[in-house]
Order: sequence, then structure tokens, then C-alpha cells
Amino acid sequence: MSSRASTAQKTPAPTRDSIDLGLLRDVLGFRLRRIQNHLAQTFSQALAGRDMKSGEFSALAIISANPGISQIELARFGGFDKASVVMLIDDLQSWGWAVRERSTQDRRRHALYVTPLGDKMLVELMELAKANEAKIHAALSDQELENLYAALDRIYDVCFTDDAS
Amino acid sequence: MSSRASTAQKTPAPTRDSIDLGLLRDVLGFRLRRIQNHLAQTFSQALAGRDMKSGEFSALAIISANPGISQIELARFGGFDKASVVMLIDDLQSWGWAVRERSTQDRRRHALYVTPLGDKMLVELMELAKANEAKIHAALSDQELENLYAALDRIYDVCFTDDAS
Repeated sequence: MSSRASTAQKTPAPTRDSIDLGLLRDVLGFRLRRIQNHLAQTFSQALAGRDMKSGEFSALAIISANPGISQIELARFGGFDKASVVMLIDDLQSWGWAVRERSTQDRRRHALYVTPLGDKMLVELMELAKANEAKIHAALSDQELENLYAALDRIYDVCFTDDAS
Repeated sequence: MSSRASTAQKTPAPTRDSIDLGLLRDVLGFRLRRIQNHLAQTFSQALAGRDMKSGEFSALAIISANPGISQIELARFGGFDKASVVMLIDDLQSWGWAVRERSTQDRRRHALYVTPLGDKMLVELMELAKANEAKIHAALSDQELENLYAALDRIYDVCFTDDAS
């Protein structure tokens, strides 16, 4: 071992029920990521053999609720980077779940639509997503969930607020 | 185009200020992921040339606050899968930021410690993480942040509650 921790740190720890988050306590990114990692893992297990990601499910649901949405808007509101969104749509299109069409208003812009097959798949996937989060929804009251959603919506909006001042 | 959406969906959409989340409204995983994706991207930009991930920062902070923590505990409380946690620790160890030592209580178990260099790096990285989330922290009151943290802590606990019943 090339480098050693200070001797004061060497007390061996028993198996713990909880840990000290330390400085991470106030890092929201960490708190979100560890839950999201867990939900993504269990959702992917629920998808079993399907070769798809949770991002594809989200993209499908957003396009379905917002027919004609552009790739840029999908990236912005879905939280995808521009490269990922192109790959997600390529996959949805190759499965026959969504289509890109040239916008009639702006020929440089693609409008996205879900196909009838895509909407059928969305219903199935939404059932899996609900089952995946059933424990969480059962643990929080409706009011607590609404407060949580409101806080997360505000945070998402703040992330995209122009701070040039 | 091999598959076409229904004609009723073809109204071209103007550029939007917001979208309809549709069925995703109640999918917490989606709401967390889109914020977390954004924070991970901006944190990675702040890290500039450094070849490190936000997970390595989180692991470093957790080990620092919980000297002697095991790999399994780090995975459990940090929200990493078992394969990722091994890679994260390999990286931290190769940089001289953390060390694995055989537990004196259980020789099969590794205890993790942060080195003095690792603690020094942690201070720098925590400054970047704080700056990365400054806008969010400014937008929420202390009480709102505490409520949000409490909800997220409960959700994380629920994720690991044994539901065999």
C-alpha cells in the first residue's frame, strides 16, 4: 500500500444501519442520484430481457403527451443531452414506436410523434414504472408527494434560469 | 417513413416554455433523473479536464465522513451497484486519495479510508459542488430544503425496506 490514512481513522466500523453523509448532506445531486440509481436498476430488472433504457420510456411518454414536440424541446424538458436525445429517438423510431416528421412550419425542424404501437407500449411500460415506485408512493401522503413534486419542478426550472447578471 | 402517427396529432407545436409531463407526472424516477442529469453535466463541466465522475466525488466524501466503511456499506448508502463501487475505489486508490485495508475484525472485509491528499481534494471538490448548486440553494428557503431532504431520505430508506410480506 503506497499511501496510508492517518492512524486516528483506523477504528474498524461495524455493519451500519445508517451513515454520516458528512459534507454530502447538502449536495442535492448526491441525494437525487442515489435514489435515481436505485430506481433505474429496479426498473431495468422489471424490463427483463427488453433492450431499452429508462430514458427511452421517458422520451416516449413526453412525445405522447406533447405531439409535434421538437428534439430540442424534448432534450430541454426531458433532461437529456443533445447527443443522447438523437440516440433515444433513433431507437424509438427503429422499434416503430415514434416517428420524426419535418415540421410544416419550419422545414429545418423535426416534429416528433408517437405511433399507435408506441402508445400501446407506453401503457405497458407505465404499469411497470408504477409498480417500480409503488413502495415510495405508499410511504408518502398525497400532500407530501405534491410538495415534493413542487420543489423538484422549481429546482428544474431554476437549473435553466439565465443567471447572466 | 414506415409508420405514421394519427392525423389528429399533426398540429405543429411552437417553441414551448413548458410541456405537459403527461403520465410521467407521477413518475418520481423521471423527475429525479432530469435534474440529476443536468447537475451531473454542469458538475462535469466544472471539473474541466479532470478525468473523474461525480460518483467518485460522492464515494470520497462518504469514506471521509465514515472512516473504515466497507465496500458493501459504501454501495448501499451511496447508491452504487457493486461493480461500480469497485471501479470507483480502484480509481480513488490509484490517485492516492483513498486506501483499502483489511479489517482487523473480519479479514474478509476491506475497510476504506481517505488519505490526507484525498481529504485535501475533497475540500476543493466540495467547493465546485456547492457552486454547481448555488442557484438551487438560493431559490429554496432553509425550511423548504430541510423538507426536501427529509422526503428524499425517507424515499431512500423505503427503497431498501424489505417488502417480503
